[in-house]
Amino acid sequence: MNHDEDDWDGDLFEDEPSLNHQAWDLIQQVLYNLDELRVEPALSSESGIVLDFGVNVPGSLSAGLTLAEISCSGLSDFSMISGELAGIRWPHIFVQTDDPVESCLLSQYAGWQLQADDYFAMASGPMRTARGSEPLFETLRYQEVSDCVVGVLEAAELPTDEVIQKIAEECNVPVDGVAVLVAPTSSIAGNFQVVGRSVETAMHKLFELGFDVSRVESACGSAPISPVAADDLTGIGRTNDAILYGGSVTLWVHGDDEMICELGPKVPASASEMYGRPFVEIFEAAGRDFYQIDPHLFSPGEVVFHNVETGSVFQFGHLNSDVLIQSFHLNIG
Amino acid sequence: MNHDEDDWDGDLFEDEPSLNHQAWDLIQQVLYNLDELRVEPALSSESGIVLDFGVNVPGSLSAGLTLAEISCSGLSDFSMISGELAGIRWPHIFVQTDDPVESCLLSQYAGWQLQADDYFAMASGPMRTARGSEPLFETLRYQEVSDCVVGVLEAAELPTDEVIQKIAEECNVPVDGVAVLVAPTSSIAGNFQVVGRSVETAMHKLFELGFDVSRVESACGSAPISPVAADDLTGIGRTNDAILYGGSVTLWVHGDDEMICELGPKVPASASEMYGRPFVEIFEAAGRDFYQIDPHLFSPGEVVFHNVETGSVFQFGHLNSDVLIQSFHLNIG
Amino acid sequence: MNHDEDDWDGDLFEDEPSLNHQAWDLIQQVLYNLDELRVEPALSSESGIVLDFGVNVPGSLSAGLTLAEISCSGLSDFSMISGELAGIRWPHIFVQTDDPVESCLLSQYAGWQLQADDYFAMASGPMRTARGSEPLFETLRYQEVSDCVVGVLEAAELPTDEVIQKIAEECNVPVDGVAVLVAPTSSIAGNFQVVGRSVETAMHKLFELGFDVSRVESACGSAPISPVAADDLTGIGRTNDAILYGGSVTLWVHGDDEMICELGPKVPASASEMYGRPFVEIFEAAGRDFYQIDPHLFSPGEVVFHNVETGSVFQFGHLNSDVLIQSFHLNIG
Repeated sequence: MNHDEDDWDGDLFEDEPSLNHQAWDLIQQVLYNLDELRVEPALSSESGIVLDFGVNVPGSLSAGLTLAEISCSGLSDFSMISGELAGIRWPHIFVQTDDPVESCLLSQYAGWQLQADDYFAMASGPMRTARGSEPLFETLRYQEVSDCVVGVLEAAELPTDEVIQKIAEECNVPVDGVAVLVAPTSSIAGNFQVVGRSVETAMHKLFELGFDVSRVESACGSAPISPVAADDLTGIGRTNDAILYGGSVTLWVHGDDEMICELGPKVPASASEMYGRPFVEIFEAAGRDFYQIDPHLFSPGEVVFHNVETGSVFQFGHLNSDVLIQSFHLNIG
Repeated sequence: MNHDEDDWDGDLFEDEPSLNHQAWDLIQQVLYNLDELRVEPALSSESGIVLDFGVNVPGSLSAGLTLAEISCSGLSDFSMISGELAGIRWPHIFVQTDDPVESCLLSQYAGWQLQADDYFAMASGPMRTARGSEPLFETLRYQEVSDCVVGVLEAAELPTDEVIQKIAEECNVPVDGVAVLVAPTSSIAGNFQVVGRSVETAMHKLFELGFDVSRVESACGSAPISPVAADDLTGIGRTNDAILYGGSVTLWVHGDDEMICELGPKVPASASEMYGRPFVEIFEAAGRDFYQIDPHLFSPGEVVFHNVETGSVFQFGHLNSDVLIQSFHLNIG
Repeated sequence: MNHDEDDWDGDLFEDEPSLNHQAWDLIQQVLYNLDELRVEPALSSESGIVLDFGVNVPGSLSAGLTLAEISCSGLSDFSMISGELAGIRWPHIFVQTDDPVESCLLSQYAGWQLQADDYFAMASGPMRTARGSEPLFETLRYQEVSDCVVGVLEAAELPTDEVIQKIAEECNVPVDGVAVLVAPTSSIAGNFQVVGRSVETAMHKLFELGFDVSRVESACGSAPISPVAADDLTGIGRTNDAILYGGSVTLWVHGDDEMICELGPKVPASASEMYGRPFVEIFEAAGRDFYQIDPHLFSPGEVVFHNVETGSVFQFGHLNSDVLIQSFHLNIG
């Protein structure tokens, strides 16, 4: 692990173990359970570890849980729970963490648009800390120097050797120190890991708004499991809608009610002007470029702050099951 | 493990470990936790392993979880969750699996009416795969040759040596290769394991309707924990009502929306003409013979299909808490 | 373990392992995870083990789970679940146990007003069984002679050496055989462990009413996580309100419907004349002396009995989210 030396204050993450090593350890466990998870190693001995969670294999709900957990370097717990949607009993994904910055921002956030030749993936996971080129790492003053890196690729295809080579170079590790888990949005596991991002999207929205994210001690959240789509565009739409219109997050923060009162109303997705129609329509209007959309849209529909210092509690936003019924093309028999 | 050799296509279950061995391994863990589970071994050295989960012992909720898990060869996860019934916060059983065919049909389904002299039990668990005489195993082309078998007996009494002898013979194992877990319907653990059958009843209904069950990738479901009854007849009524009128199941399937549209409406219990009154009344009318009732009745009240190939999602059926209040003789103070 | 010898009937707890030893074993696991839990050992080599779960450290939700579990000698399972409050998706604490007497009354009940010089704590955990001076232990005929004891202190400050000395003396163990976990009510973990007391308060109310608590085989319950307060008085108010106005408990009992019918209506908090206003107001009126308040108030708002012998099921009481909104000072944006 390494930090900017010049103005590093040394407080925030000094004694933490490497996120990449934590995630790497989790992958070793996955290797013992490939059949059970319906996951397969991609056949290339030179390209580090490439595990297929849904490109050429069916994947599974357990694989989705594993994918979500590893994208967070093991610092969030995920579970399937029973919830409600449009009067139907509907499974949701529940996530809880006591390390929201490390788990969600340093690891889970899909902040790397990985592109090489024809290949494109939204890349998340702790490997981003070794690449270190997102502005987020400068602001949070965190970077890892590691001999191995772990990433999750939300992508339609398995990466080529060139893609792995590129990851190795950008992260400054040998090729056999790269481990990536790959799943399309429109697969059981890929769909699952995006719906698991309720807390992550709240944390990133706070970060974008200039909220001091180190004030968030703990968090939990839930969102309805969107139906796996036939194609990735629909899948991106549905998974985002699950968060925007069905996601609710609770944050335990310390200090500064004023900051919460000022920024809080802007945190939920419902604060965005674009809120109120299925994400796929918004996405089309933005030329299908995920990163061209107002980043402030990406957030759960409902956010609740518990200020553990002042005892204040604030609720912002609202959910919208009508948009979910529309987005999920829900046929009620 | 062995399969019909003549026309076996070799695809479906070839590399799976033996279901009976998986369940046998779980029983070894139970033997270390008998006191904690309030479970007792029956005192007979010649009859393999007979564990009393509720005949002469009180049993427990944990014992119910264990019973449910072992009946599924460990391939489904069970948990108690908090739900709602008639405006009351009411515990439910949640089950999830990535192996619905192996877990529910090959293991959990109570397809064996075990009878010997005066003894009667509804027998479930993977031992049925070694007996192999249910038509289900022919259709699914699965049979195990094993040196040990594991079963769950829903029965009012502990089995005699003759009963164990009969199981051994029918399953072609030595007597000391038989392990059975026994609980009356009207016991804490026995009640629990039946209410845990939400997904199983949906899978079996699909199978009976001629749906290609290998298309079901994953599933989850929940049902309210019925009050343990004073007698087994009432117990059978209440546990079935928990599924029929309070059970909801979500299935992740692949392929063929037409098949779902055609068969789907018939899947939930609410599709049956008999739906709408407590099961015990239906059972009485059928001369108390479980297997004389229209098998299409046994299904959760609500079933939701997610087609992971086409992206379609369909909901069928409805729940009915009024029948549950009646069946549970719920006194609201 | 030791029992009154004169009139001990020998039935109830004879073969159980020592509650203090079970809790002590759990503490050893905590010592390996201090950083992860944001828990710190207090710096005194002579005073046994003193772990700070929230006095000078932030603590965490995981620390709260751990605190709750150890206060029950590991005999209850706790989890965070997603519930609903005032139309908002709101995290709750769910607890389940197959050992409600040992877990809740012999361990978790905060029956010891620990006072030494200026120091005050509400003390819970199995160390109370070694002290043995609460009337409860005489009625339940349980006492432990142990070389180590474990307690949880709900207190604003870390205990001094004199406090630990006093615990050692009263529990008849050497000072280095004392382990205490300390958290203020108004801390993440301290708040959590009080809200985890839904089943405990029901069990204690039953005990106070003269119900034969050995008839309770199993139990589960839930309550909304109250917002951590800025001061302990508000914290005591909010955590109690979470139970009184938001707690619901299900009890699996055996025998005697008459006893349930007679005592049941008195069990929920809503049976108390004081029910209907925030606890802090009641507490103020009682001169801020927790033990001067009608002990019959401390109970979940809703209690459901399942009689596993007779099959009867009874619901008593009701919840009141209006008082919770008032108590939590909930700002809905």
